[in-house]
Amino acid sequence: MTPSQSESARLDAQMAFLMEADRLKAITRATRNHDGRFENSAEHSWHLALFALVLGEHAPEGISVERVIRMLLIHDLVEIDAGDVPFFGEVDEAAKTAEETAAAERLFGMLPQAQGADLLALWHEFEANETPDARFAKSLDRFQPPNLNLASGGGSWDDYNVTHDVFEARMGPKIRHGAPALWDWLAPRVKAFFSRR
Amino acid sequence: MTPSQSESARLDAQMAFLMEADRLKAITRATRNHDGRFENSAEHSWHLALFALVLGEHAPEGISVERVIRMLLIHDLVEIDAGDVPFFGEVDEAAKTAEETAAAERLFGMLPQAQGADLLALWHEFEANETPDARFAKSLDRFQPPNLNLASGGGSWDDYNVTHDVFEARMGPKIRHGAPALWDWLAPRVKAFFSRR
Repeated sequence: MTPSQSESARLDAQMAFLMEADRLKAITRATRNHDGRFENSAEHSWHLALFALVLGEHAPEGISVERVIRMLLIHDLVEIDAGDVPFFGEVDEAAKTAEETAAAERLFGMLPQAQGADLLALWHEFEANETPDARFAKSLDRFQPPNLNLASGGGSWDDYNVTHDVFEARMGPKIRHGAPALWDWLAPRVKAFFSRR
Repeated sequence: MTPSQSESARLDAQMAFLMEADRLKAITRATRNHDGRFENSAEHSWHLALFALVLGEHAPEGISVERVIRMLLIHDLVEIDAGDVPFFGEVDEAAKTAEETAAAERLFGMLPQAQGADLLALWHEFEANETPDARFAKSLDRFQPPNLNLASGGGSWDDYNVTHDVFEARMGPKIRHGAPALWDWLAPRVKAFFSRR
């Protein structure tokens, strides 16, 4: 059996998108896995989706775990064109936003029109960080790296000379924003880690 | 605010599980990404979840894309204890099944009881390959590697000396079983690839 013309054309576009997505496996992040290797953005996206699957009960009410998982699966694809921005690094925010928006339009634009528009909207929702789903997803994206740093004994905190005060001031609000229960669990563990140094 | 005793205890267990899951990033597969590097099972799981998100319309009727995504996010965790089995390699099936079942029980057993039981049941459903969701998920797991091989110009087909006949005989039924439309799209592309050699 041959797929119908339109199904085949849709598959051509979708497979081109999925094989382009393969390039996310080559984008290196500033965070280290617990074996010390720098994490790539594809395995990071998997890890975050698993965080959402397991930790959904700790989200503020009214979120959809399924939508959060979808967001997290696609949230870093823009890095294929725009690269990863280390959280404790320096960046021109406006230029970065423009670069990532262009990347999202190119990548999701490879898909059949309505499907691409849906995923582009989901990515914009994530970036805007306003809906409960986006807030929880963004907070998970901030919550995972400190846990890897605890597991690897310092990780990116050492690479970027991050102190406990800087961590609390810069990361605390971002994790609390969408996942206060996770921050309450994490904060004393990070404090204890830095106090032992 | 301190999380309630029970919420904190649940988070302790869930975070221990999620950090153990980090080890999946160090499990190497036989498939190569399109840049030639061997794929790891964590980035593979992400890629498959994205396949499910994008290709759900081509599944036989009656599947839940959300359940398929959940299955694919957890399907390879057992490799943390049991390792990856190359599709075209040799293996003692009974011994492997026992090893993977023990791994699933250990890993999902780290979670709060009901949550762990749910994920263990989902993993068993995937492995049994009988429900429409499991069949589609399993077929995606078989459909992705040949696409990577096409993209990298041979990949694991070359590493394992796989001919077109062997590919058709061994992989065809497995992809058709849960995703006939995807097999119909893929088969002529693989045939053309081998005919050009």
